[in-house]
Amino acid sequence: MAQNTRILLDNRPVGEATPGNFRLETVATPTLQDGQVLIRHHYLSLDPYMRGRMNDAKSYAPPQPLGEVMIGGTVGEVVDSRHPRFAAGDSVVGMGGWQQYSVVDATQPGALRKVDTTHVPLSHYLGAVGMPGVTGWYGLVKIIDPKPGQTVTVSAASGAVGSAVGALAKARGCRVVGIAGGPDKCVYVKNELGFDDCIDYRVHQDYLSLAKALKQACPNGIDGHFENVGGMVLDAVMLRTNAFSRIAVCGMIAGYDGQPLPMANPALILVNRMRVEGFIVSEHMEIWPAALTELGQLVGSGTFRPRESVAEGIESAPDAFIGLLKGRNFGKQLVKLV
Amino acid sequence: MAQNTRILLDNRPVGEATPGNFRLETVATPTLQDGQVLIRHHYLSLDPYMRGRMNDAKSYAPPQPLGEVMIGGTVGEVVDSRHPRFAAGDSVVGMGGWQQYSVVDATQPGALRKVDTTHVPLSHYLGAVGMPGVTGWYGLVKIIDPKPGQTVTVSAASGAVGSAVGALAKARGCRVVGIAGGPDKCVYVKNELGFDDCIDYRVHQDYLSLAKALKQACPNGIDGHFENVGGMVLDAVMLRTNAFSRIAVCGMIAGYDGQPLPMANPALILVNRMRVEGFIVSEHMEIWPAALTELGQLVGSGTFRPRESVAEGIESAPDAFIGLLKGRNFGKQLVKLV
Repeated sequence: MAQNTRILLDNRPVGEATPGNFRLETVATPTLQDGQVLIRHHYLSLDPYMRGRMNDAKSYAPPQPLGEVMIGGTVGEVVDSRHPRFAAGDSVVGMGGWQQYSVVDATQPGALRKVDTTHVPLSHYLGAVGMPGVTGWYGLVKIIDPKPGQTVTVSAASGAVGSAVGALAKARGCRVVGIAGGPDKCVYVKNELGFDDCIDYRVHQDYLSLAKALKQACPNGIDGHFENVGGMVLDAVMLRTNAFSRIAVCGMIAGYDGQPLPMANPALILVNRMRVEGFIVSEHMEIWPAALTELGQLVGSGTFRPRESVAEGIESAPDAFIGLLKGRNFGKQLVKLV
Repeated sequence: MAQNTRILLDNRPVGEATPGNFRLETVATPTLQDGQVLIRHHYLSLDPYMRGRMNDAKSYAPPQPLGEVMIGGTVGEVVDSRHPRFAAGDSVVGMGGWQQYSVVDATQPGALRKVDTTHVPLSHYLGAVGMPGVTGWYGLVKIIDPKPGQTVTVSAASGAVGSAVGALAKARGCRVVGIAGGPDKCVYVKNELGFDDCIDYRVHQDYLSLAKALKQACPNGIDGHFENVGGMVLDAVMLRTNAFSRIAVCGMIAGYDGQPLPMANPALILVNRMRVEGFIVSEHMEIWPAALTELGQLVGSGTFRPRESVAEGIESAPDAFIGLLKGRNFGKQLVKLV
């Protein structure tokens, strides 16, 4: 038994999420039953999809229940096990939620996965070699499916998903252009992540201005786009798409607070014979092994080592999460718990 | 040699197309060269895509040049031939344009196709067993790809493309719901074309109201949608789509006059993991034989015999075309030339 500090969803946001939507409490971890494993979390992952779950709206996933521990990916160490496949000291990744410890029924397939930290640091299993990386892989490989020499753009390019899209597209011989918020992120995207170019959308008043910048950065047009943002970024990209271009719609963070977010010019879908496709990576478990293998090699070899934003302590999770929604993070947002 | 009355594009529309955009002239047909065929047109096809060509805007096809004969599909009879595969009396389909006669270089692959009028009336080769029918086939079969029991919706359901989509979807065991303008068209769509239901979009003030009507007509939601219109119709349909639904974007006639036509809620593409895909049937010639075979059987067997709107004489083409853009036609719009 251990004291477990955890964060619950207390009430739902009206407009923007605030710290007041969350509630902190400390409880003792329960006694393990057969098949269960007690895990001490080293890192909690904060991701944009969590904002969607905070709303009580029809979506692809049920809403986060009020009064329960916030959902979230975690990596950590097994401290006690009553399951034969897990032993104290194992490094594991799972969906432990916003808390210091979790008790997992390891008999459920996929609930807990052992990971090897020889070449890949543990925290990266929440980012580049985890759900965000696989998300990037699915959208790029299965929807955009770019050919060498084609141009791929990515919004939220400095983030966990966007940076993976860039690394995977570069590995396929593409010209890769990021879109990010602020000059620091753009420098990082170009100089550290190795994108061919990066555009700061914040200096553009409207989508027509952003589209002009994209024209310069993508002289051969855009063949594929990975969308994390929506709104003005998507409108600008669509103006520069080539015939038969593909857009993988992974996120529309610009609309998560409920403001209307129309698409300015859907007729371009017809004019450019585009394919626009939304997806949720958890519905495509069959591609995870191939994606994790490639991403593990890119990170393990040092080809792809994205930055992390690390907040300290479970108490910092709400503020760090709200900062993520406002784009204050730099790369994968984590909360360090040990 | 024969006297050929024809219609040229004289100037480009500002806003709506008007009769003043066109010019009529009569010239003699030229002497045939080797490989050429002279055709007397029996019918000219009028289609919404022509409106797009009248604009001098970037699109999937070059604009219709000023001072040249308006582009258009035609069926007719060979009256003279200097090509070994064609003889006087042959029934042929081609792109003869808005005129009474055309001279075709039959050595060009695909320029001219002989057709059999034993079971299919000649005019249907411009509609149900022609480009509009194949357009419906591609969007339904290659993009929507519906399973038996799924619900498919079609806008402009009484038109040449929409009616073919309905017949093909019924043949695949789907529930088919049309959207059309006016009570007469809706009665025709249900009673003559055999759709399960049809909604008159004109009685709805906004897309939320139309979406309510769709909810009643599609109790199991919408799995596939064939879009000819855009705007409020597309917005309403998107609200009722199921997870993994597909939208084939064939036309956005609501925006052809240049007014802005935003999509209200593109986040639904993500929420419902939709695929939205635009296409142009002329870029998929490989599917024409299979499509024409199925459509020919549906029409030849009497299972599918859509109505035609027939204007008389080449001089009537501009008014008939403008009527088509306003939805005044009833089924496939033709101009009878003999």
